[in-house]
Amino acid sequence: MDRVYGSQLTSHIGERVKLAGWLHSLRALGKINFLQLRDVTGIVQIVLTKEQVKQLGGALPESVLEVEGAVAAEPQAPGGVEVRDPAIRVLNRVSEALPFPVNKPDLDVHLDTFLNFATFGLRHPKKQAVFRVLAGVLDGFRRFLDRNGFVEIASPKIVESATESGANVFKIDYFGRPAYLAQSPQFYKQMMVGVFERVFEVGPVFRAEPHATVRHVNEYISLDVEFGFIRDHFDVMQVLTRLIRAMLDHLRERCARELDLLNVELPLAPERFPHIDFPDALQLIYERYGEDARHEPDLSPQHERWLGAWARETHGSDFLFVTGYPMVKRPFYTHPKPDDPRYANGFDLIFRGTELVTGGQRLHQYDDYEAALRSRGITDLAPFEGYLQAFRYGMPPHGGFAIGSERFVMQLLGASNLRETTLFPRDLNRLSP
Amino acid sequence: MDRVYGSQLTSHIGERVKLAGWLHSLRALGKINFLQLRDVTGIVQIVLTKEQVKQLGGALPESVLEVEGAVAAEPQAPGGVEVRDPAIRVLNRVSEALPFPVNKPDLDVHLDTFLNFATFGLRHPKKQAVFRVLAGVLDGFRRFLDRNGFVEIASPKIVESATESGANVFKIDYFGRPAYLAQSPQFYKQMMVGVFERVFEVGPVFRAEPHATVRHVNEYISLDVEFGFIRDHFDVMQVLTRLIRAMLDHLRERCARELDLLNVELPLAPERFPHIDFPDALQLIYERYGEDARHEPDLSPQHERWLGAWARETHGSDFLFVTGYPMVKRPFYTHPKPDDPRYANGFDLIFRGTELVTGGQRLHQYDDYEAALRSRGITDLAPFEGYLQAFRYGMPPHGGFAIGSERFVMQLLGASNLRETTLFPRDLNRLSP
Repeated sequence: MDRVYGSQLTSHIGERVKLAGWLHSLRALGKINFLQLRDVTGIVQIVLTKEQVKQLGGALPESVLEVEGAVAAEPQAPGGVEVRDPAIRVLNRVSEALPFPVNKPDLDVHLDTFLNFATFGLRHPKKQAVFRVLAGVLDGFRRFLDRNGFVEIASPKIVESATESGANVFKIDYFGRPAYLAQSPQFYKQMMVGVFERVFEVGPVFRAEPHATVRHVNEYISLDVEFGFIRDHFDVMQVLTRLIRAMLDHLRERCARELDLLNVELPLAPERFPHIDFPDALQLIYERYGEDARHEPDLSPQHERWLGAWARETHGSDFLFVTGYPMVKRPFYTHPKPDDPRYANGFDLIFRGTELVTGGQRLHQYDDYEAALRSRGITDLAPFEGYLQAFRYGMPPHGGFAIGSERFVMQLLGASNLRETTLFPRDLNRLSP
Repeated sequence: MDRVYGSQLTSHIGERVKLAGWLHSLRALGKINFLQLRDVTGIVQIVLTKEQVKQLGGALPESVLEVEGAVAAEPQAPGGVEVRDPAIRVLNRVSEALPFPVNKPDLDVHLDTFLNFATFGLRHPKKQAVFRVLAGVLDGFRRFLDRNGFVEIASPKIVESATESGANVFKIDYFGRPAYLAQSPQFYKQMMVGVFERVFEVGPVFRAEPHATVRHVNEYISLDVEFGFIRDHFDVMQVLTRLIRAMLDHLRERCARELDLLNVELPLAPERFPHIDFPDALQLIYERYGEDARHEPDLSPQHERWLGAWARETHGSDFLFVTGYPMVKRPFYTHPKPDDPRYANGFDLIFRGTELVTGGQRLHQYDDYEAALRSRGITDLAPFEGYLQAFRYGMPPHGGFAIGSERFVMQLLGASNLRETTLFPRDLNRLSP
């Protein structure tokens, strides 16, 4: 007999079926007893006699069971069906105490304890839902780009050059030579614009910054996009806007059950996200919130929160583009504003008051790269040779952006710590599981 | 005026359009001259007067151009259309000699030279086609698994434990602690079977073996699958067979143009791939090819070629499962054959005479893991704790497999070196670009 899933039971009423899953809970009332069996589609109620409970031999919750029984309509049961007269086989018996229960509506456990027992704790339906949403984000990202002619690339993660944007990098011993873990696919996605015009990548990036904040981890999944034949960063912002809206639509359809379970309100994402120029943003903060940061080269987290609130109130949008940051805070490959090279042809996208995406137009002329590196004091161009080569042989004007997938889910779900939406986080103190 | 692509021209006959792309070639005949413009959809013929050629100012091939002109039907031209009376703007001028031409039908250049100039050489239409096929493989893999209820995961690549299958690993300095680059997502995909039942991952893996062969690189993209509630490895083989056939169907549809350009004959992949047990395979080799390897614990590359030829001749299949290898050659998490624990409940899938996939059933009881590790002389289980934990709390019988994506494409296209189907290969000598 082939296994059926819990979600399929309504089309098997009156038949005997085989189910399999985990013993989610057992409510032993004496004469009549209820076992909840959890499979990947949800929870099924199984009615047991006292005798059948004994046959479980004391198997604890999370034991793996195979159950053959008769499907019956039962309005009181979850899903409107239950399984009666079961024959139960224990496939894998749990006999030691669980670290914490995963069969309560909420997982009430300290984050560190949860992470120590992540492979177990992730079984909680709400935790499963979080990482199904994350999978939905990756899928929605790729589907939109695929539909729009972008080609997927997978760039190497072991790289020769350490200096990309000043971020700290992890060093590895590569057969006796120094090498580094890629802090982003930035160089490679640009190089591949010369080949495919429009490319994207979903892959791990590695940051060796020794932060200990709720918003940073040292390895995460970056959603990278880069494409050519743009006029300026506004073309990039337009693609990003369409992408975000398509990803939200995809989640709405694909993860309806999860979003409902997690009580998530999807963000306001109008057809055009509002945008504000960096100096205007500081002026607005000064006028509206009284803080004079008009001399600052960057926005603080508080500034971003204020701007996020302003965008929602005045533009009905949970997303806000801030354009034209000072060049001094931007990486060397950034294209300056043609009419005022102190500022960048780039943007940050603020989502619910926190920066989510950084992007912009890049330099595309070889000579401009040489000048940009030298002006930052980098005179040995040898480690950049593989990258700079791409600009010698005809690179179109281009730009792109990167989204941290776990951070997107964090802000979408309103989680308070990035470690809640990162499958197996890596940070200063945590390297396991 | 919005840009149109070369492939769209047939629906613009009689109109003026804007194109953009690379100067693929220029055939200057004097009075009438032909410029081939390459964009991501292919090549467009543009007719230039002598005067218009002069306006190019000597821009060399691979210069980036924007062209406005009139679309006309022209049976002699590629695609049946050409562009006349063009106004050309040079967006990025190439003025130095190219490393080698990319506008000949074949790229006639030594592999090392090609790899040194990969960001340039990849522009050759046949090279583009190779990596579009690779992208198609990743996409076909994910789409099949998504349709079949598998959940995508992205496991960490920085890991605590070095010893998984005996492969060499790259060591990194993780904030003063030793850590390693994951040689596969094996541990994590198994752990996640306890959560989602069926999981998959597409991601980089790192192998520090100092080989110098045409079939190995030190970083590649692994296609990993793992799922629970199996009877034995034959359930795994069934899913793998369906997956391979679905991936080939996907390529047939999505990459028809590329497969045609590369002159690829898709493999024979019958509804059921033949399988042969390991001892029978050695017996067959003895009887058919006269080599007595019946005492060997593994197959040599020559054995795999013979078996591949046999499968094609006698079963009309380019794929062959070899099952039941000796346990001694298999990693510690391998499930033994219940009735003869010297052999494994596992398989290799041989594709056109070369191993492509390894997979099988895994142990699922905590005590079996402890025993398996100890029997291999591993008594300090602490580095495995995060992994072993998963088996304490109810893990179903499960199994899975891993496919090297670049190797699949290599064997599919009949390439002679894995570096031809790896985007930016990493090996003993190569770390750049």
